[in-house]
Amino acid sequence: MKVAFIGMGTMGGPMALNILKAGHEVTVHNRTREREEPVAKKGAQRAATPMDAAKNAEVIITCVSDTPDVESVILGTDGVIEGAAAGTVVVDMSTISPSATRQIASQLAEKNVKMIDAPVSGGSEGAIKGTLAIMIGGEVEDVEKATPVLEAMGKSISHVGPIGAGQITKAINQIVIAATYWGVAEGISLGLKAGLDVEKVVQAIEGGAAGSWILSNRSNNMIKNDYPLGFRVRLHRKDLNIALNLARELGVMLPVSAFVEQAETSLMSRGYGDEDVSAMARLVREQSNIA
Amino acid sequence: MKVAFIGMGTMGGPMALNILKAGHEVTVHNRTREREEPVAKKGAQRAATPMDAAKNAEVIITCVSDTPDVESVILGTDGVIEGAAAGTVVVDMSTISPSATRQIASQLAEKNVKMIDAPVSGGSEGAIKGTLAIMIGGEVEDVEKATPVLEAMGKSISHVGPIGAGQITKAINQIVIAATYWGVAEGISLGLKAGLDVEKVVQAIEGGAAGSWILSNRSNNMIKNDYPLGFRVRLHRKDLNIALNLARELGVMLPVSAFVEQAETSLMSRGYGDEDVSAMARLVREQSNIA
Repeated sequence: MKVAFIGMGTMGGPMALNILKAGHEVTVHNRTREREEPVAKKGAQRAATPMDAAKNAEVIITCVSDTPDVESVILGTDGVIEGAAAGTVVVDMSTISPSATRQIASQLAEKNVKMIDAPVSGGSEGAIKGTLAIMIGGEVEDVEKATPVLEAMGKSISHVGPIGAGQITKAINQIVIAATYWGVAEGISLGLKAGLDVEKVVQAIEGGAAGSWILSNRSNNMIKNDYPLGFRVRLHRKDLNIALNLARELGVMLPVSAFVEQAETSLMSRGYGDEDVSAMARLVREQSNIA
Repeated sequence: MKVAFIGMGTMGGPMALNILKAGHEVTVHNRTREREEPVAKKGAQRAATPMDAAKNAEVIITCVSDTPDVESVILGTDGVIEGAAAGTVVVDMSTISPSATRQIASQLAEKNVKMIDAPVSGGSEGAIKGTLAIMIGGEVEDVEKATPVLEAMGKSISHVGPIGAGQITKAINQIVIAATYWGVAEGISLGLKAGLDVEKVVQAIEGGAAGSWILSNRSNNMIKNDYPLGFRVRLHRKDLNIALNLARELGVMLPVSAFVEQAETSLMSRGYGDEDVSAMARLVREQSNIA
């Protein structure tokens, strides 16, 4: 299949490489052009603009940082919308606002260009290994058309609902992990201050109702007070903001998510924004005077 | 082994029965005496007071509601302390204050009676099936002495640290589940108000970093807005209060646990105290005007 891939970041670069390895024809574009080079060396074509990349493509993937970036590469000057043929499917794999997603999709629809939203979880490791979880919103026939390409990048591909549903699912994912990280941080901190062997505590409780991926995989960071990546605090806060804005639009009250977003703001203001999200435990530890 | 079992409640009754089935000699006592009858019919002896039950026992188990109840049955008039021989091990399987636990242990120690704390998780179902998780604090030799009896009740038996460590571990368990339940409730509520098929959302995210026992096993209650037991709100609030009091003693700040304790107070004041803890989602749903 002819695939355009726009956005050669930490995620997009290895994702495009996996599409290439799966045997598709790939054309890549990145605003900072030299980031196209590693994928071009492996056989991808390069395009000077999103518009040029989109020409002749059957599936056009965007994987950029935030809502304004997606709007720019799809709808802006020399954007995808100027190059994409009618019937093409645009697959936005960035994590952005669900309502902006629907607006972009409706503008593309005026030119008979299709769109699905397909944000991912699994981090840079998942991008490299092709084991991302992909959460999809869109029409069935468009999702089916993109599936061979998506399968090159992810191991769990879930079509959840109509356009925007992928982004809402990603927002729910980020809400759930926010509270879970914080709860584990509170529990670990109490154990540390009580002088327990907290690794033993985790082993004692992880098999029951307290069990979670975060407890089993990130409590050790909190015990050591060392937070290697993982998934950056600043990116989780960006995603949590998307979730909180969606909640405002829908009239949903999310007090613990809002609290965690504030905690992450504190972490960022003090230079911890590029640490793993488990660095939330820094706050509970500090507030509780745990060395 | 000769075992005394004090407290024939929802948990204690089936736990005593499992000890009996494992071939031990069991003497039971309960303040409301008729609750001794089901276990007596299966072959247990009955005792008129905790003191009488404790006489001749090698291991004395207490499984009652709260800190004052444990103090009463162990240290009160006709209490365990008046009947227990030197060298006997008292195993308190109630969920109570860790500092009260240490005080009770030190009073028993004056009579050369040993004590370990061994609170459980796994609920009434785990009590009946003998699959409880048991979290233990105490001296190695006392834990070893009680182990044959503990093995009749639990499948995961974790010796975490010195006296009180079992109770602290249980407190940490309840802290972690508090935030996780609430986070799942926030996420589910956002999905419901957005009109998504929330079961699909759960399937899409439960395999990744958002995955937890609670997401996989209790989100369905939240989707249906129906909260069969499970584990009662009022009991979780009691346990969370123990955790918050411990945190006060130690100087640990637990803002989300405190928030959830308030939420549970609201549920109890409105007649939902005997529903499952997942009923927390009632609040997020109501606050967000979700039918």
